[in-house]
Amino acid sequence: MSSVPVDIDIPDNYVAHTLQNSKALPPIKFSNLLNEINWLSFTILIGTPIMGVVGAMNTPLRWETMLWSIVYYYFTGLGITAGYHRLWAHRSYNASKPLQYFLAFAGAGAVEGSIKWWSRGHRAHHRYTDTDLDPYNAHRGFFYSHIGWMLVKPRRRPGVADVSDLSKNPAVKWQHRFYLPLIILAAFVVPSVVAHYGWGDARGGFVYAGVLRLCFVHHSTFCVNSLAHWLGESPFDDKHTPRDHLITALVTVGEGYHNFHHQFPMDYRNAIKWYQYDPTKWFIKSMQMVGLASHLKVFPENEIRKGQLTMELKRLREDQEKIVWPASTNDLPVISYDSFSAVQAQAAKRPLVLIAGFIHDVSTFMEEHPGGAHLIKRFIAKDATTAFFGGIYDHSNAAHNLLAMKRVGVLLGGAPHILDIAKQVPPSQRLKIAR
Amino acid sequence: MSSVPVDIDIPDNYVAHTLQNSKALPPIKFSNLLNEINWLSFTILIGTPIMGVVGAMNTPLRWETMLWSIVYYYFTGLGITAGYHRLWAHRSYNASKPLQYFLAFAGAGAVEGSIKWWSRGHRAHHRYTDTDLDPYNAHRGFFYSHIGWMLVKPRRRPGVADVSDLSKNPAVKWQHRFYLPLIILAAFVVPSVVAHYGWGDARGGFVYAGVLRLCFVHHSTFCVNSLAHWLGESPFDDKHTPRDHLITALVTVGEGYHNFHHQFPMDYRNAIKWYQYDPTKWFIKSMQMVGLASHLKVFPENEIRKGQLTMELKRLREDQEKIVWPASTNDLPVISYDSFSAVQAQAAKRPLVLIAGFIHDVSTFMEEHPGGAHLIKRFIAKDATTAFFGGIYDHSNAAHNLLAMKRVGVLLGGAPHILDIAKQVPPSQRLKIAR
Ligand code: HEM
Ligand code: HEM
Ligand SMILES: [Fe+2]
Ligand SMILES: [Fe+2]
Ligand SMILES: [Fe+2]
Ligand SMILES: [Fe+2]
Repeated sequence: MSSVPVDIDIPDNYVAHTLQNSKALPPIKFSNLLNEINWLSFTILIGTPIMGVVGAMNTPLRWETMLWSIVYYYFTGLGITAGYHRLWAHRSYNASKPLQYFLAFAGAGAVEGSIKWWSRGHRAHHRYTDTDLDPYNAHRGFFYSHIGWMLVKPRRRPGVADVSDLSKNPAVKWQHRFYLPLIILAAFVVPSVVAHYGWGDARGGFVYAGVLRLCFVHHSTFCVNSLAHWLGESPFDDKHTPRDHLITALVTVGEGYHNFHHQFPMDYRNAIKWYQYDPTKWFIKSMQMVGLASHLKVFPENEIRKGQLTMELKRLREDQEKIVWPASTNDLPVISYDSFSAVQAQAAKRPLVLIAGFIHDVSTFMEEHPGGAHLIKRFIAKDATTAFFGGIYDHSNAAHNLLAMKRVGVLLGGAPHILDIAKQVPPSQRLKIAR
Repeated sequence: MSSVPVDIDIPDNYVAHTLQNSKALPPIKFSNLLNEINWLSFTILIGTPIMGVVGAMNTPLRWETMLWSIVYYYFTGLGITAGYHRLWAHRSYNASKPLQYFLAFAGAGAVEGSIKWWSRGHRAHHRYTDTDLDPYNAHRGFFYSHIGWMLVKPRRRPGVADVSDLSKNPAVKWQHRFYLPLIILAAFVVPSVVAHYGWGDARGGFVYAGVLRLCFVHHSTFCVNSLAHWLGESPFDDKHTPRDHLITALVTVGEGYHNFHHQFPMDYRNAIKWYQYDPTKWFIKSMQMVGLASHLKVFPENEIRKGQLTMELKRLREDQEKIVWPASTNDLPVISYDSFSAVQAQAAKRPLVLIAGFIHDVSTFMEEHPGGAHLIKRFIAKDATTAFFGGIYDHSNAAHNLLAMKRVGVLLGGAPHILDIAKQVPPSQRLKIAR
């Protein structure tokens, strides 16, 4: 195991170069399917549910065993989420020796490969998200990213990702070395033995807390690669597929706030709000409280808010663009006071009212005016600025916005006093999302 | 009854002038309280609940009477909300003759004064919201705007508000003329008679569907002046006190979207979403479907969206101002390439990395870098632009935002190629709320 980072010398154009020049296996077709199957993973992933179902049909379920299976599901689930994922793949906190061995053992019980193999793939997943250098590229579909990528031989070598830090880690080395005995012990022996000595149900322990529980843990953690890249919202960034959703969180022991996680992968949290479901975070925090974990990393709040703000502005900007805005001063004809007065004669035909230097055509609106037509009529061909802005009625911001829509001209020299400039800008245009 | 609008000739500075010059009664104190009480309203408003409670304690409640009271609560409630309020005070739709008489009768059963008196006050309320010309000025407190304003003599004449349109209306005139017999009939006789002939419970009808129901209708509609100016959000505008809240809507037969209503008072809706609780709107819409109502007014969607957008931008602008942004180009020292290279010698002390024309101090970050310190070390005193922007790793928008926070200088002549200009602007600063 080398301790020099594998990516220390890669060229500046590594990604583009590799995508173009590294060889990919041919796409899976019906004809080559059999040749392309990865038999080891295939057997484990197909065998587990079959064994589980057959076993369950022949083994009565006792409530103690039921409870124990749920407990053991969380135990091995946390091995992956708090151990493999947040501790080793992302180094989001430091774990004491006992906690590390505990997590390495629990994670072995999930039978998803050694810490080193898993973290290498996962770091490539983050580093090359949604590209062909990502081993579980979500752009290749739900099924592929969930399980397909393990059932067949990898189509391409994942992009380079350094795990030299893990190569030096004793707990990781220990797990790597004794991986086979450890999975047999953690996945099958322990659940059976506990059920045997606890309430005399070794067989139930094996079938339910061993095999069926393993099947659940598998698909639960696989959902992080499929469901979490497919269902939900993107409150922090929408450049890539990762999404946030409560359902994903419930299914994955708290890994469902995946949009956040891909933006801030070295944050020990996935959920940042206390009421969101992230038991993995709660576990890590508790370990800190009992002194078994330390240096829990959190990304600066300031930067997290930036991402949220950008996404909210993006959404509002779409609204802003859909709205019809009033004609701007530059697009309106400039009309002299004389020619404006001249309209007085034909006022009935086209009633014009002067407010804040703009000339407004109120013909379509006068009869609908909530204050009554008579109040507007009075100001035809006159200046209603004072009356409109509180002299007679302090119109709502909505009224001012609407008024601006009725502009048909600008009065020559009619610019209001500098203190009144706000009257020219309808309230809806005082704040604006600009690039 | 005059048909010339009372406000046709008021001066341009009516509001300020009146607030300054119209006389107000002295504030209510313990010493003058007895003199200032409005005995008619006082008796009705205090008498109703007392009679109701005493009656209820001596009258068994039958389920038919219970149901009938609820039905009659909605019946008289709609008289106020769909009749007094949305039809007559705001002219938000046209009602056929039969519907008008129906509403005038139902509204009489709520015993809140005649249509004309009520609308005159309500129009002043909208026209002078939150000022002393508003008869139920919410700035004078919850109790005052709920009921206090009726218990004592008005402190000041409400501001002028035109109701000449109502003076011409036959149904309004009819109700005004027969107001006393109508309230006795609608508030007490009808509820008792129906209960008597329906299931032989005249007494229960009087107590529950008559008196107690009246008390509920009173406080239900009063809540529009108190609760609706106090509880909830301001999604359309926050210049004045009106607010939107589901609870207020539930309590007031749908008048709880009061922030919307004060912005768009001539809209026949108070709730604009189908799932919001506005039975008054549903009633008016049904009347249109059976041909009894027409010309239902709605404010242009475009203008409604403007109000919402402004309020959302206001909220986000506060966030934007709380966030710490990176130093802008103008605030940074310009450093020549020679002096930048010179730092190479003392790189260990202050590691600087050049990206997109900016010089970044990565000393605090290097060891925390999720990609490993080695990748950054490689680029100390070098240009990492390509590597950072996808050559080696296509950093997240969050990483780019964070990078900008580490700026300490600008490289002289280091401005990137015009096509690369986006690399100088972190993603969080591409959209911005400006004034
Ligand atoms: C021509 C431009 C005008 C427009 C677009 C306009 C628009 C509106 C709108 C939308 C309302 C509803 C309440 C609100 O949103 O604040 C309103 C109410 C009112 N307007 Fe105007 N208005 C105009 C001119 C005037 C003028 C010149 C006067 C006075 C001389 C006036 C007096 C009133 C009054 C008294 C009300 C209150 C009605 C009530 O709440 O009962 N308006 N106006
Ligand atoms: C000095 C400025 C740098 C900053 C502020 C920075 C920041 C970050 C951040 C926040 C991440 C977490 C993932 C993400 O948000 O995208 C990250 C990951 C990474 N960075 Fe940087 N980085 C810098 C320089 C570099 C350079 C120069 C390289 C390459 C030579 C590099 C290579 C990587 C790699 C490979 C990852 C992926 C780690 C993983 O997901 O396993 N970074 N960087
Ligand atoms: Fe992911
Ligand atoms: Fe991850
Ligand atoms: Fe109000
Ligand atoms: Fe109203």
